[in-house]
Amino acid sequence: MPERLTRAFAEALDAADELAPFRGDYELPPDVVYLDGHSLGPLPRTAVDRVRAVTEREWGRDLVRSWNLHGWIELPARVAAAIAPLVGADADEVAVADSTSVNLFKLLAGGLRLRPGRNVLLSETANFPTDLYVAQGVASVAGSELRLVERGALGSALDERVAVLLLTHVDFRTGELHDLAAWTAAAHDAGALVLWDLSHSTGAVPVDLGGAGADLAVGCGYKYLCGGPGAPSFAFVARRLHEAFETPLRGWMGHAAPFELDIGYRPAPGAGRLLCGTPPILSLAALECGVRGVARAGIERIRRKSVALTDLFVRLVEQECGGFALASPREATRRGSQVSLRHPEGYAVVQALATRGVYGDFRVPDLLRFGFAPACVRFADAWDAVAALRAVMEGREWDRPELRRVARVT
Amino acid sequence: MPERLTRAFAEALDAADELAPFRGDYELPPDVVYLDGHSLGPLPRTAVDRVRAVTEREWGRDLVRSWNLHGWIELPARVAAAIAPLVGADADEVAVADSTSVNLFKLLAGGLRLRPGRNVLLSETANFPTDLYVAQGVASVAGSELRLVERGALGSALDERVAVLLLTHVDFRTGELHDLAAWTAAAHDAGALVLWDLSHSTGAVPVDLGGAGADLAVGCGYKYLCGGPGAPSFAFVARRLHEAFETPLRGWMGHAAPFELDIGYRPAPGAGRLLCGTPPILSLAALECGVRGVARAGIERIRRKSVALTDLFVRLVEQECGGFALASPREATRRGSQVSLRHPEGYAVVQALATRGVYGDFRVPDLLRFGFAPACVRFADAWDAVAALRAVMEGREWDRPELRRVARVT
Repeated sequence: MPERLTRAFAEALDAADELAPFRGDYELPPDVVYLDGHSLGPLPRTAVDRVRAVTEREWGRDLVRSWNLHGWIELPARVAAAIAPLVGADADEVAVADSTSVNLFKLLAGGLRLRPGRNVLLSETANFPTDLYVAQGVASVAGSELRLVERGALGSALDERVAVLLLTHVDFRTGELHDLAAWTAAAHDAGALVLWDLSHSTGAVPVDLGGAGADLAVGCGYKYLCGGPGAPSFAFVARRLHEAFETPLRGWMGHAAPFELDIGYRPAPGAGRLLCGTPPILSLAALECGVRGVARAGIERIRRKSVALTDLFVRLVEQECGGFALASPREATRRGSQVSLRHPEGYAVVQALATRGVYGDFRVPDLLRFGFAPACVRFADAWDAVAALRAVMEGREWDRPELRRVARVT
Repeated sequence: MPERLTRAFAEALDAADELAPFRGDYELPPDVVYLDGHSLGPLPRTAVDRVRAVTEREWGRDLVRSWNLHGWIELPARVAAAIAPLVGADADEVAVADSTSVNLFKLLAGGLRLRPGRNVLLSETANFPTDLYVAQGVASVAGSELRLVERGALGSALDERVAVLLLTHVDFRTGELHDLAAWTAAAHDAGALVLWDLSHSTGAVPVDLGGAGADLAVGCGYKYLCGGPGAPSFAFVARRLHEAFETPLRGWMGHAAPFELDIGYRPAPGAGRLLCGTPPILSLAALECGVRGVARAGIERIRRKSVALTDLFVRLVEQECGGFALASPREATRRGSQVSLRHPEGYAVVQALATRGVYGDFRVPDLLRFGFAPACVRFADAWDAVAALRAVMEGREWDRPELRRVARVT
């Protein structure tokens, strides 16, 4: 990199970008720099036609026959098979169903049963709050206990009472990456299972669940997988656990013979038993488009560009703007596809940026988050975002009462 | 009714039909008689534009800002408020989220906790199998017991160990209606709660949960509510139980202050605490269109026409076709919007009917099911369906090897 970064330098990086041909695969408003891929990925162009076809041609014309005629019945397994290589899994180890929270519940409750005599779910206070709510909910029915410690105390808290270590791969506040292989080994050394929440990694960071020997994982469909708002989630169970794994959430889709209408539940083979009720087909069809888009762009190329983009962004903020503390690791290998900054007026700054067409988001108390979906964000976008940030700060554009409200979804 | 029914008579009923103006609100192929409304309701025309707008304009253009800008964050509560009057509930007693199976799990587990000292979930062997799988799943974590008895033994099985009586309002095989008020009273007399599965009633049969004093209920979004394949489900908790009701499935959407990112879970007020993870917005938007269509047609008018349609269909089958046993109650007040027939070659007959454009469905071992979505099925459709059935039987059109396969989704 040159000593002083310029827009021309960013443009040169775009000209050499191996992912540049994929940007056109996404619908993006021309006047927006979209740095919220960690919250809601952009719309894949293929999803426009696909959602229309599923709605108008399949549901509208072929009606209930579409379950067979258009493969709705196989759709969860098809999407699962497309996600599997992105997380280092085999197709029969992944299921697509329900929300991330619901899948977490299945895996935490199922994991507890695989470690009889242990009843602690261990996690860190910095974990995604919803994950902790789910673990509290499991405790309320399963008699387990949620043990919450600071990150630095996780190792010593991994004792003989821990059934499942629950960690989120990419910290939602700072973007910091946990060492997936090391924590998996640590959990196993303590006789515990590990459950990884890959919500902020899948589609942006290559994950090798198989290589690490991980046990359980969940992930989100609507962030870097670009599956659309509230897209179904995925869940992973390592093959060696399939035989013994039981989910407490049992529905017809996860039954070994769903159309025999037996009174008794018999689980389907493999991760297919994690299916429960009928999946939301419109949303699931959009997710398939998102996942295929990530697969086409290639997760290794995505990671290379993600590192370059976030590196550039960090350096540009430091060059152009004062007053921000970097909340993310400076070293790219320790970071997901997200850069977080701290500023006491963070909420208002994010709002002011949005009025300039730069969409990031805010998390209490003072975090500005910028998530880079590498297949559709340009290096010049990073420059433009930082230029807008500089203008917002220099002009004190954030200092308007209507921007300084309580946060909602941003 | 005349002694001998004719197509002209059916046409005269259509000419006088107060719901006739609403048929145009649904997309239906001109060459299809659709009698599978109990499985997947047809596409409301309003959903075509709405799903496009949510996909292309909201997700595609306004991206994550749509949560506030287009009210995605309020969508579950808005749809819940629209469903509430269809089931005799107030808006704060209903939540729209997840699948019917997942909602059943929440309510069964939550109901158990409201009856400490009791650990039996009571249901009947004829209940919808998925409901029984869910109850088995609850038992696997909560230490409860699923007691399954024949319908005639339900009363005597309602003893002091029963925490929740779980019944489906309309029998999915026969269309028979349980007496909701009477069984609710019986459960209460025994000190138990009652949980109604309204999947085959909502949108076709008026339900008065409030009037009956019912405790808990779930229902399906994709049958008579016409919400689209796998549409989210709804759940009901009577207001008097809100304070004490706890769901084991806890996510950010059901938190009292979802954006404060507290470590501890605090439930939102009312049925809102039944929300869990992020809902599938495309599917939820379609559901809203379906629910509003039912509300416009009017549930009382829908029921009146449903009774007339199913009565006509039963009489036509008896007049035109031999060889079928009526599996549904003959008395319309004891029946949902469905007529079931028994025939040993039922599967092949349903397939042969479909080749003639008449869509019903089949359930093991010998049931042909015909579900009437009254806002979009004509009396002449009932005639045409029975005429096709007669032709199939007279021509032995079912007697072809390719039609006599194992059932899939039909």
